[in-house]
This record gives sequence, structure tokens and C-alpha cells, in this order.
Amino acid sequence: MTVLAVDLGGSHVSCALVEDARLIACESFPVARDQSLTAVLPQIEQILERLRTRDDRKEECEAVALSFCGLVDPGRKTVTAANGKYLDSASVDLNAWARARLNLPLFLENDARTALLGERFAGAGRGFDDVVTITLGSGVGGAAMIAGRLIRGKHFQAGCLGGHFVVDYHGRRCTCGNVGCLEAEASTWSLPTMAANHPAFAEITLRQAEDITFATVFPLAQAGDECAMGLRDACLRAWGAGCVSLIHAYDPEVLIIGGGVMAAADQILPEMERYIHAHAWTPWGKVCVRAAELGNHASLFGAIPLCQERLC
Amino acid sequence: MTVLAVDLGGSHVSCALVEDARLIACESFPVARDQSLTAVLPQIEQILERLRTRDDRKEECEAVALSFCGLVDPGRKTVTAANGKYLDSASVDLNAWARARLNLPLFLENDARTALLGERFAGAGRGFDDVVTITLGSGVGGAAMIAGRLIRGKHFQAGCLGGHFVVDYHGRRCTCGNVGCLEAEASTWSLPTMAANHPAFAEITLRQAEDITFATVFPLAQAGDECAMGLRDACLRAWGAGCVSLIHAYDPEVLIIGGGVMAAADQILPEMERYIHAHAWTPWGKVCVRAAELGNHASLFGAIPLCQERLC
Repeated sequence: MTVLAVDLGGSHVSCALVEDARLIACESFPVARDQSLTAVLPQIEQILERLRTRDDRKEECEAVALSFCGLVDPGRKTVTAANGKYLDSASVDLNAWARARLNLPLFLENDARTALLGERFAGAGRGFDDVVTITLGSGVGGAAMIAGRLIRGKHFQAGCLGGHFVVDYHGRRCTCGNVGCLEAEASTWSLPTMAANHPAFAEITLRQAEDITFATVFPLAQAGDECAMGLRDACLRAWGAGCVSLIHAYDPEVLIIGGGVMAAADQILPEMERYIHAHAWTPWGKVCVRAAELGNHASLFGAIPLCQERLC
Repeated sequence: MTVLAVDLGGSHVSCALVEDARLIACESFPVARDQSLTAVLPQIEQILERLRTRDDRKEECEAVALSFCGLVDPGRKTVTAANGKYLDSASVDLNAWARARLNLPLFLENDARTALLGERFAGAGRGFDDVVTITLGSGVGGAAMIAGRLIRGKHFQAGCLGGHFVVDYHGRRCTCGNVGCLEAEASTWSLPTMAANHPAFAEITLRQAEDITFATVFPLAQAGDECAMGLRDACLRAWGAGCVSLIHAYDPEVLIIGGGVMAAADQILPEMERYIHAHAWTPWGKVCVRAAELGNHASLFGAIPLCQERLC
């Protein structure tokens, strides 16, 4: 099967020609924070047209699969909540656009769900029907699948709000309005507050870092910086606790951990696996804990299973 | 439809003759803590035989629906984890028992899931296809349904471990081995520890209560006892946080709160509803928060939908 794939992220758009488990060609471009969807569609259209023409796949392409960085209704093919990105997206008729401009049927899904589909199709989730993904980075995202079917829920938000499971109900206010969400306790946006509250913050190297991000925290922690080690350990425990809740919620065989933070996978993966195996109640055995394999391309690889799921 | 229903609880067994949404007749008996399943089956058999004979429904009864206080495999009709109750249950061939002794097909499910089915069929969940239940009491239990289908998971533990979602990852060790589970932070078994740690515990009435249970805490809190108020408020916040995670996990239309604690529903329900509506991220609207209506009989009412689910 050959399809066109689009991953509409918050900071980048990626377009690809996908054939089975291969990305034949791929092009990305950055988008401004306040970009409208209407404004980027012509550019997407041009790239997709170029991809399928250049590789002489115009006839083979059966559909366009669009991953979106917000909540969507995959049946009606509409965006239901865009989290401050692409503010006009709810009013854009994507289905009509795909028909009129590309002459293809459209399949639309949340990007965390397509990333899960991708990892299962061509990455760390191969061979599993019960999968949970968690993406650790600027926020905390993820998705869930039971018995080969994505968990979507009545309002399309089931399975993908693992970053907003509470891990400390005495904790910090989250951007979502809740208190003590995993994302509020351990993510890029909460790191500077975590650092400022750490008793060793005044004395240490981390304070001199330009940005307090995981890219600075993990190397400093490995070098023995006290505050960085404290932040790293607090994050690992919070992520571990969040993963245990995800396992208790969805009962998966495999938990796949991805996101920018996994640049320090050597510090993260063994510790997370240890925490999860020590704390998750799984009388049947042990959940397999794996690093995501497809990075930023996971959603593009998810295009084929998304179209197949819908077509059958 | 007419079926025989059995609810195998930790401290009681209830048997009933159920016709559509009516309990025609019901009998219960207590069981010892270390009772084996083999030892109680003859008594269950006698009661069921009496129920269907007395009410002259012997011909109409189509099945026996058994709710069990542990994890079960509803396909194989076996108990997979019994939580220290009915220790022989995994080795009992319940299907063969039902065939040989009652000449009826058996349907087996976890009691929290049958209680959800019951509330949806004849109680607080009528008219909803997307339902989460939470039962607050000696432990914290529950179940989840999406689009009219129970969430079961690969190892039959999805949906029913809401009591073991983490609400405070710095918190107390739980009986399940995890840290900071909702059940470890706010349940009957964790109340005495919570009380002993409260700064006002030494001075107050609660200490003189024979047992520190919700039955003593809620009335004392209403009477202004400082420690009891502290415990009540901590529990309400922890339960509220747990409910928000459940809503984020399963995206329901309605959340049904039950359990012995709901004797103080007037102190619990408005506060939980307020917390949930203030903290759950539900851009589509508000989750309906309701008290369970069927009490200890919910699982018995779940017998009919359980048998119908399987038959079709």
C-alpha cells in the first residue's frame, strides 16, 4: 500500500510518501507558533504533489493520512481541540481539501495515536497488540491500544492524556487546569520551576546553563551536579509513577518510551524499567519496557496502519 | 431474560434470581476469610436451586452469571488472581460445575465490571455508553466502559485498577507493592495511618473512637472535629484527583461513585463534583458525576447484560 503522510506538529510539518513500512521520501518545514492551518495547507499540497510525482507514484497513492497535534474526530475528520496551535483548524474542512486538491480520501488522527500505530507497524511495538506509548519532552503525551484497537473514547481523548494523570495531588498547577499532572511534575516546561525550588540550586552549575532543559540536566547529572541529579531522580520517579498508572489503566504487554528526553536513554531506560517492574501490579508477568525506535518519523510510519484500520 | 446471579464477595456471597431489570428473589450468606471456593459451591448450588424452583422459573433460567472479587478470564471462565480470597479458585472448573450441577451455561466476570454493567442496566448509568465507576470503601475499586464495551485488557486487569493509579508518588506503600496508590492514600485500611500522622490526632475525639473508619470520620468531621475534618478533606482531594485521572484515562460521559463511604454522600458528592469539574480537562463539556444507585446489588443486576453481551 502507498499513501501520502502528513504530520502536523506544533513547530514543524513533515510530509512523506510511504510505501508499506518504508518512507520513500520525506520533506519537512518549520511553522510559526501562530500559523493558521489555512496558511500552511497550500505548502503541504505542493510538497505532497512533488513527492508523489517525483517518485512516479501518483497512480499508486490511495489516501492521505494526516496526524494532528491535538484532539480530532477521526469519523467526521475534524479537529476538536487544537491546544493553542493552528487556531482555525476546527473550521477547516480537511476532507474537502484532500478531495479537491489531491483527489484522495483523507484519514485524520491525533499524532500520539499515529505514532503508536507507527511504532507497532515498523518500530518498537512490532508483534504486540496491547501497547502503551509515553512521550517525554516539552510536554508528556502518549496513546494506548488494547487488542489491536486504539483507545479513543467518546470525545476522542481516551488513551492520549497520560501526561495529565495525577502523580502528586499536592503538586503543581498544570497548564490544563488540573493539579499535580505528570506533565506538571516532570516535563521541559516544569523543569525551571523544579530547579528553582531545589535546595542546591543556588550553588550549582545548572544555574549557569542558559536554558534549564533535559539536554542540560542529564549530562550535568551524570557529571555529579547535585541539583541536576535531584531533578533527574525526581523526574525519573514521577515518570515511573505515571507509567505504572498507565499500565494499571490499559494493561499492556509493552510500554514504549519516546520523546526528546530519550537522548539520555542510557540514564532513563534502565531506571524506568526497574521502577516499573518493582511497582506495577502485573500478576501475569512483566511489562516489556522499550525505547521508541522511529523518533520524529513514528507518525509518518503510522499512516499505513491508520488507512488500513479505516478501510477495513 | 431470566438468569441466576451469584456475587462471590470477600465477606458475603449473594445469590439471586434475576429477570430483566428485577431481582425476583435474593439470598446472602457470610463466608469466612479463609473459605475455599470448593467449600462454598454446594451452598450456592442449593440456594440457586431453591430460588429457581420456588419461583417456578426452572425452565426460564438461561444461564448463571457469576461475579468474582478478583481478576478473571471471562473467555476461559477461570479465576486468574484472587487477592488472597478463595485461594483454590484458580483451580476450580466453574464452567463444569455450572453444567453438572445446574445444567446451565456459565458467565464469569470481575465483580467491579458486573457492578458497572448493573448500574448501566438498572441504575445510575442508564442511557450512557461511556461509563467509569469508582467504589470507595475498604479498598478502592471500579471499572470502565467505552462505547458500550467493557474495558478488559490483555490480562483482564484494564479498567478495574483505578484504586491503584498513583495520586502521590511521594506517598505511602500500597498493599499491591506500588507507592502512592489512590487506595493507599485514601481508603478504610489507610485511615488509621492517616489519622496517626495528623498533627491534631493527639487532642481529638477521633482517637477515642473504637475504630477509625469512614463511618466515624464523616460524622465527626461534620461535628467540627479538626482531625476528622483534615482526614475527610485529604480523602476528598485524593479521590477527586483519582477521578480526574480516571476521566483522563477513559473519557467517560458519566462517573458513578459507590461504596460504603457513600453513606456520607451528602458530604462527598457535591465536593467531588466540584473538584472534578474544576480539574478534569474535558473541552467537550462536563462529566456527569452521580452516586451509585444499586448498592450491594449492582453486580446481581449486572447478570443480564453480562449474559447478553456474551450471547450476541
